[in-house]
Amino acid sequence: MVDGDPRLARLAVNQMTVRSWGVRDLVQGCLRAGVPAVGLWRDPVAEAGLAAAARWVRDAGLRVSSYCRGGFLTGADRAGALADNRRAIDEAAELGAACLVMVVGGLGADDRDLPGARARVSDALAELAPYAAERGVRLGLEPLHPMFCADRAVLSTLGQALDIADALPGTGVGVVVDAYHVWWDPQVDQQIRRAGDRIASFQTCDWTLPLPADVLLGRGMPGDGHVDLRALRRGVDAAGYTGDIEVEIFNADIWAADPDEVVATIVRRHVQHVL
Amino acid sequence: MVDGDPRLARLAVNQMTVRSWGVRDLVQGCLRAGVPAVGLWRDPVAEAGLAAAARWVRDAGLRVSSYCRGGFLTGADRAGALADNRRAIDEAAELGAACLVMVVGGLGADDRDLPGARARVSDALAELAPYAAERGVRLGLEPLHPMFCADRAVLSTLGQALDIADALPGTGVGVVVDAYHVWWDPQVDQQIRRAGDRIASFQTCDWTLPLPADVLLGRGMPGDGHVDLRALRRGVDAAGYTGDIEVEIFNADIWAADPDEVVATIVRRHVQHVL
Repeated sequence: MVDGDPRLARLAVNQMTVRSWGVRDLVQGCLRAGVPAVGLWRDPVAEAGLAAAARWVRDAGLRVSSYCRGGFLTGADRAGALADNRRAIDEAAELGAACLVMVVGGLGADDRDLPGARARVSDALAELAPYAAERGVRLGLEPLHPMFCADRAVLSTLGQALDIADALPGTGVGVVVDAYHVWWDPQVDQQIRRAGDRIASFQTCDWTLPLPADVLLGRGMPGDGHVDLRALRRGVDAAGYTGDIEVEIFNADIWAADPDEVVATIVRRHVQHVL
Repeated sequence: MVDGDPRLARLAVNQMTVRSWGVRDLVQGCLRAGVPAVGLWRDPVAEAGLAAAARWVRDAGLRVSSYCRGGFLTGADRAGALADNRRAIDEAAELGAACLVMVVGGLGADDRDLPGARARVSDALAELAPYAAERGVRLGLEPLHPMFCADRAVLSTLGQALDIADALPGTGVGVVVDAYHVWWDPQVDQQIRRAGDRIASFQTCDWTLPLPADVLLGRGMPGDGHVDLRALRRGVDAAGYTGDIEVEIFNADIWAADPDEVVATIVRRHVQHVL
């Protein structure tokens, strides 16, 4: 277990933030920095080997704050998507991840039927939820910023995610509160309160301007942009969330920087702008 | 009056769609194409001269479906913004525009206080609404896509726009339903029903992928993307909207094309994808 600065007790670093690091690098880097939790992704875990990755994290005494990702449930190959999600659930179970983050998928090339795609998501989740619950894995439905509605996730708001979660049997399905995706939402405070113990993950980064040519890489370092991260953190805390606060940044400049320096900056910004 | 194809009876072309045209070019181009209404912008109107622009449109028998735009109410110079909006209201009155489109403004450079900016918008609108009502000008609050929340409009959903409009005295303040900005919203159908006779303008264009480097120029020709424009048009009609259906596209490729061909394409797409 990492027994360090109590201000970092809930800090997690998502692997994509320091993309040049493999799982073992990430574990060692977080140990060096006193960060007690990591968010992992399927590709680097596969590269490391699932069993080895699980062992490294466990032996280091780190938590797995999230496992990214399942989802992509809107396409034509429903059976294939379900099978792949079952594998992701199995992996999340072996890693002991706090949740499997679900990015639900967008619209097909010529598809204009948004309600239809949304219905397919609900339908697929109804199949996956019991499988995940049996394995002790929490699914975290992640609303993505509406600018990704067509290509990545027809799930666009916390309210919508909670409506879907509420309609599923049991309470195993949660929601991911990612600051970048939800900060603009006039209902965000109210929906975070409503979410309560359905909050499966809280992720931070910042909305910076101008947006880059590829908006997927627009996520900025906490403190560099327009999101009141402290207000969001207080909101999820008040709603009862006690889990990790995970920094997830996709950003070409940050990827080009020295990963140890990136983690050091994350630690500083977490204390300055999130706590 | 344009006495042409009845399928075009409610079609309007926004000036920014054919940006190389001045007001007189736009009026003549719409007459040639049988389009009975135009959406005008302040800069080209100023260039033409307000009185001349109003006369050209009136003499041609065209309607002014919208006047773009007022707003930008979140900055430090409140008095300056209010004065500029009063001028825009006066101009809209002289043009006989169906509404003055209000793009409310974003956050300042280091501003993280989104609720504060939203409160400033409501406050400024409370001052402007009576002025507009006295001059017979309808203000149209335009929720912009959440990807513009930081830099252009802290007004992000139809529901939020209606909450603001409902809190103002009188019924003069309406909302703009712009397909590009609202298509992703899980509550869009419900909020359009709620809007009813508050719908001041209905604008079409399409959400195409990939987004361009400058997302402001991402608006596509109706039929080229993922928005079910016919469903939205049926929704606003069912809500009681009988006004113009205005095509507003900001797109570098379309700006580079021959404006008469652009209008011809708009006419065809309107019939194919909107009616």
